[in-house]
Amino acid sequence: VGDELDLVRRIAGWSAATLRSGSALTLGIGDDCAIYSPDGSAEDLLFTTDFLLEDVHFEVATHSAEEAGHKALARALSDIAAMGGDPRFCLVSLAFPKKLGERWAEGFYQGLTDLAKRFGVEVAGGDLARQPRVLVDLVVCGAVVRGGAMLRSGGRVGDGLYVTGPLGASARGLAQRKGKAWDRHRRPEPRVAEGRALREAGVRCAMDLSDGLSMDLHRLALASGLAAEITEVPRDRGATLEQALHGGEDYELLFASGRDVEGMIRIGTLREGTAGEVLWRGKPLRRAGFDHFARG
Amino acid sequence: VGDELDLVRRIAGWSAATLRSGSALTLGIGDDCAIYSPDGSAEDLLFTTDFLLEDVHFEVATHSAEEAGHKALARALSDIAAMGGDPRFCLVSLAFPKKLGERWAEGFYQGLTDLAKRFGVEVAGGDLARQPRVLVDLVVCGAVVRGGAMLRSGGRVGDGLYVTGPLGASARGLAQRKGKAWDRHRRPEPRVAEGRALREAGVRCAMDLSDGLSMDLHRLALASGLAAEITEVPRDRGATLEQALHGGEDYELLFASGRDVEGMIRIGTLREGTAGEVLWRGKPLRRAGFDHFARG
Repeated sequence: VGDELDLVRRIAGWSAATLRSGSALTLGIGDDCAIYSPDGSAEDLLFTTDFLLEDVHFEVATHSAEEAGHKALARALSDIAAMGGDPRFCLVSLAFPKKLGERWAEGFYQGLTDLAKRFGVEVAGGDLARQPRVLVDLVVCGAVVRGGAMLRSGGRVGDGLYVTGPLGASARGLAQRKGKAWDRHRRPEPRVAEGRALREAGVRCAMDLSDGLSMDLHRLALASGLAAEITEVPRDRGATLEQALHGGEDYELLFASGRDVEGMIRIGTLREGTAGEVLWRGKPLRRAGFDHFARG
Repeated sequence: VGDELDLVRRIAGWSAATLRSGSALTLGIGDDCAIYSPDGSAEDLLFTTDFLLEDVHFEVATHSAEEAGHKALARALSDIAAMGGDPRFCLVSLAFPKKLGERWAEGFYQGLTDLAKRFGVEVAGGDLARQPRVLVDLVVCGAVVRGGAMLRSGGRVGDGLYVTGPLGASARGLAQRKGKAWDRHRRPEPRVAEGRALREAGVRCAMDLSDGLSMDLHRLALASGLAAEITEVPRDRGATLEQALHGGEDYELLFASGRDVEGMIRIGTLREGTAGEVLWRGKPLRRAGFDHFARG
């Protein structure tokens, strides 16, 4: 974990040195999406880019080509959902080994475009190459009314913390490799409608749960300059507490709000305290979420 | 070549099935960039995504980390230049092996951000992962006055064909691995100012030369529904005719124009004929340009 956070922080510093004040890029590294505000438009554009790597995010032996295509797009759509955006178009960079054959590529595009059509996402272009293992980089552009994006940094003291659904199904599925939880792991459903509804209900602070609650809540609290206290952890049917606290890839939304939102599950509160500290049962919660970078 | 063109064509078909008429995505797959027209803005936004792969586009043994970073961004900036755009921001997805160390990543970002600052490109975000070989996916967003982008399809019968500089230096550098041509191969210079000047001079048809003149002119002619005749091939000092006709990665611009443009080198003419056919010395020219996909 330290490895990735350190390098990510240094990259953020090098990148920040390229930023110009007053430019149309109104939010850079550090949230689910970058934000670009086109001159003269009433919309902000959101941009996110996500790797889907063989043997990290999926396996050729246990995931169909369709599932890989679905998951590649779903991961990126989840970042747009986190800010309350409407997804507009995507760019698909795909590298895969010759041995998988063109039928694999066809299945991949089938899974990806099925999900794209369902969410009204247009496939605008991409790149294609050979590599010994499958590697996808998915870029999605979304749109939101100017200034309306929900940010990780938007939390305030006393805000309730909420999630859009119970947690741990994806981690349980990965452990069991069968049943509904396994389907959930292989075909995550981005919470696009939920994100839009939260934004329209006035919520200003959210992110998506991709790396586990303990890791992601730490990030939201840190960005908001506050501590977080968890009082309840809603578990998906059969998931362990460990899976619900630390399991990645649930792709539910985590958000902070000054008032209850109908249908959403309250898990705790944002408080004054050490920025980024997460308390659970009165003690600091260790961060054991999935760290793609440390594993490679 | 057949392999890539076939799969690219099929992917274009699957992608086209996601397009909606009347959407803000005004140009999808098939040109150097996709074009998105934000509601209410006087600008069009250009998007391009380009892989930079170890052992395909560069080698760790012969390219420094700085050169890899430079080249990753230069390749994508060249696509923006091809449409006459102003580059605005980029997203950097980087995967690299642990054995290269964080110093390699630092050098990569140094090379990339040096070039980014020179062209006013802001680094807006990205993704980070481990892989056994270096893999970069670079997305650049550029802007152009609405409707002003130069397209591959913009050529007309009788237009002169031009390039922004002599060709073959990159291929010669790759063969010799020393001298100025080798520097040129490792540190290509995107023709951003030249592309903007052409667009402002009223040119409507252009692309960048990344895969060799024979391949790329075929693409421009095909998109314009015309044949092309080459009468002159300007060679960089020391480059062979073969290198100038078929060598990739020169990153000069190729364009079609109804009148001469000062300082540009005329190489031929667009004519009625079989769409995409390129004639040289009265005969169809074989396409021997670099094909990244067939090699993997």
